[in-house]
Amino acid sequence: MNNQIEKKIGSAEIICVGTELLMGHTLNTNSGYLAKQLAELGIPSYRQIVVGDNVDRLTTQILESAGRCDLIILTGGLGPTTDDLTMETAAKAAGLPMVLDEKSKVELTEHFTRLGRVMTDNNLKQAMFPVTSTILPNTNGTAPGAMFYCPAPNAGDPDHKALLILLPGPPSEVVPMFTLSVRPFLEKMAPYKLHTAYVHLIDIGESAAETRIRDMIDIQVNPTIAPYAAEGECMFRVTQRIDSDTDPDLLGPVLDELKNRFGDHIYEIGTRSMKEVVFEKLLSENKTVAFAESCTAGMISAEFGDIPGVSQVFTGSCISYSNLIKENVLGVPSETLDKYGAVSEECAAAMAEGVRKLMKTSVGVSVTGIAGPDGGTEERPVGLVYLAVADEKGTEVKKLTLGGNRMRIRRVATLQAFNLLRKRL
Amino acid sequence: MNNQIEKKIGSAEIICVGTELLMGHTLNTNSGYLAKQLAELGIPSYRQIVVGDNVDRLTTQILESAGRCDLIILTGGLGPTTDDLTMETAAKAAGLPMVLDEKSKVELTEHFTRLGRVMTDNNLKQAMFPVTSTILPNTNGTAPGAMFYCPAPNAGDPDHKALLILLPGPPSEVVPMFTLSVRPFLEKMAPYKLHTAYVHLIDIGESAAETRIRDMIDIQVNPTIAPYAAEGECMFRVTQRIDSDTDPDLLGPVLDELKNRFGDHIYEIGTRSMKEVVFEKLLSENKTVAFAESCTAGMISAEFGDIPGVSQVFTGSCISYSNLIKENVLGVPSETLDKYGAVSEECAAAMAEGVRKLMKTSVGVSVTGIAGPDGGTEERPVGLVYLAVADEKGTEVKKLTLGGNRMRIRRVATLQAFNLLRKRL
Repeated sequence: MNNQIEKKIGSAEIICVGTELLMGHTLNTNSGYLAKQLAELGIPSYRQIVVGDNVDRLTTQILESAGRCDLIILTGGLGPTTDDLTMETAAKAAGLPMVLDEKSKVELTEHFTRLGRVMTDNNLKQAMFPVTSTILPNTNGTAPGAMFYCPAPNAGDPDHKALLILLPGPPSEVVPMFTLSVRPFLEKMAPYKLHTAYVHLIDIGESAAETRIRDMIDIQVNPTIAPYAAEGECMFRVTQRIDSDTDPDLLGPVLDELKNRFGDHIYEIGTRSMKEVVFEKLLSENKTVAFAESCTAGMISAEFGDIPGVSQVFTGSCISYSNLIKENVLGVPSETLDKYGAVSEECAAAMAEGVRKLMKTSVGVSVTGIAGPDGGTEERPVGLVYLAVADEKGTEVKKLTLGGNRMRIRRVATLQAFNLLRKRL
Repeated sequence: MNNQIEKKIGSAEIICVGTELLMGHTLNTNSGYLAKQLAELGIPSYRQIVVGDNVDRLTTQILESAGRCDLIILTGGLGPTTDDLTMETAAKAAGLPMVLDEKSKVELTEHFTRLGRVMTDNNLKQAMFPVTSTILPNTNGTAPGAMFYCPAPNAGDPDHKALLILLPGPPSEVVPMFTLSVRPFLEKMAPYKLHTAYVHLIDIGESAAETRIRDMIDIQVNPTIAPYAAEGECMFRVTQRIDSDTDPDLLGPVLDELKNRFGDHIYEIGTRSMKEVVFEKLLSENKTVAFAESCTAGMISAEFGDIPGVSQVFTGSCISYSNLIKENVLGVPSETLDKYGAVSEECAAAMAEGVRKLMKTSVGVSVTGIAGPDGGTEERPVGLVYLAVADEKGTEVKKLTLGGNRMRIRRVATLQAFNLLRKRL
């Protein structure tokens, strides 16, 4: 592709290709991810489409979309099998012949050698691209992406061309490819810039949070504030539209006012998740942590384990699903279990203290509760959860009464466990 | 609507309406749900579209879709606020005036009275429908749905009409409305039925799996076999088209042939996930399990903990991120760690045996490896993972060399740990 920037992008459409999406076998998360990215980039997107692995319908769709917008992002159908036909079909729609890319061929061959697997002929398909393509490396799979222009005359402009960006199907490949190769490229082509801050809040609902800033929302022009609900937390997206490099920073004063109004409800202004905030706090305070999990069954540890380098602060955990483990491994006194039960303030405290001692860490955090669907009683209903945090200053317990199903209860308990730890640090 | 069945439905499209979907703020689960329903009903659906709450674009989309298919299911935009405009827009596209439905008005009024809330004028909007509509009751919200025909002449047929079915946006309202009112109606209108089986495979790639049945795919007519890739595993969907109740079962022989060719690669023919297969095997053999996790950091335990009732077979786990925990809690000999390192066959075996002893379970399963991005060496690269399973018969170790990023390595290691356990049981 000529690497010059042809023109600013006025609008975009997203086309996800895959019969598995059309049949409802695979949940389409790419559309939402890409839509969010486009919104952040300030590129309006008016349509998302799913089509199957079918040459005719895909061709029609590409040309139809190309005729009415400047950018089409496609996902899926870049695999090695015969029903993966997005690259060839898009090339044909754009009138471009396919050529073998030697560099991609070498990488593909090396990949198979490294894994000790045999490369079959159909795998070689993944090294073929429309001539003039910019090839997008895949850091997490074998199918590279590609960008090229597709001529599509429309009513307004006989020379109209749409930029096609082809990405793989699996979200684990789409996200890094978009982040590393596509986003930096599109940033230069958006009609204006958006300067965005994300204000993450906990322990307050979306509706209550919005009510508290009703006056600010009512008079907003630029920046705008938009509230969003997430599981167990909520967020404000504060966005300033920037038309010229000399525009002043208008976000600062709005963020200051939000800090004023929400105080410690704000756990992050930026993009860090709760667990990342906690990780960096532990790291900067040179502390270590261990978790004792009952109803969350490893979710806190697994979430924490997502963070690269977490071993600097994370020693280990004990998942104590049964009372025997609580007693024998974590050292919860059998009298505590007998008298108060496993889902109690006292048991949570003993678990946090026990895991701290067992794992020899600065802090111990515990969760015990009833995630359901069974196991609830009148006195201890499904959704009752106790959290505790123990450190050298002592032990603190928090009681939660959560709604929703088993998965939601475990997820919100996990988030709250991190929050308890954050506040303690 | 004239309740007579006008004609069989040859194809369908799904249109989800909502700016929150276009912006990526709300995950679109309706498309997938409805697509799956249509597939089960044997109604081919070739496109899913998302458009915003915009009269012009929605009108264009309805007429475009109506011109090429017999059925359009729309979701969203039936609410009481001004940006909810699907019903009016679809009525206009179909050339039908809106009329007040007295029955719906009474129900709406009663609903507000029951909640002790005041009904505003815009709520009344939800009792207005295109004349000739069949109204679909909403058992879980205030907005009823509607079905009516939209004339849309196309190349093949100047009298072509598409049936529009308008449903609300929230999945909690879509599912009961579809189940109670729409599905029974469509069952009578589908051109044929589909009988589907899902064959889940492990330890073989999609491409290799397809190659092994190339001959079957090449000659397939009915049933058809379609391969799908998932993370660390793959699947065949085998579908028989049934035109009459007297059609013989053609799935059986195909499934038998697949079993012949793939043997133990097949872990499930049905809808159970790997962990559910393992859970039911443990339950039926009256066995218990404990996990010792290093690089997966709780992911195996958390995944297993998703299953309701898992406490019957799952006692607990030890997440041993640091070597100290491997040694002190799991009892891995310090000589093993010194001589072979934490990422070794020997350490994996000792961890599985150690957790089995610590948690007093029938089986112990362990994982130790390098998930990256750091920590890899020439000799022990990122992606090197050892799994072990220990029971009363002894200990078995498996070595994995995984590609992809930290998250993928941990996820595939988790899946493989369950698989190792499955094969041992």
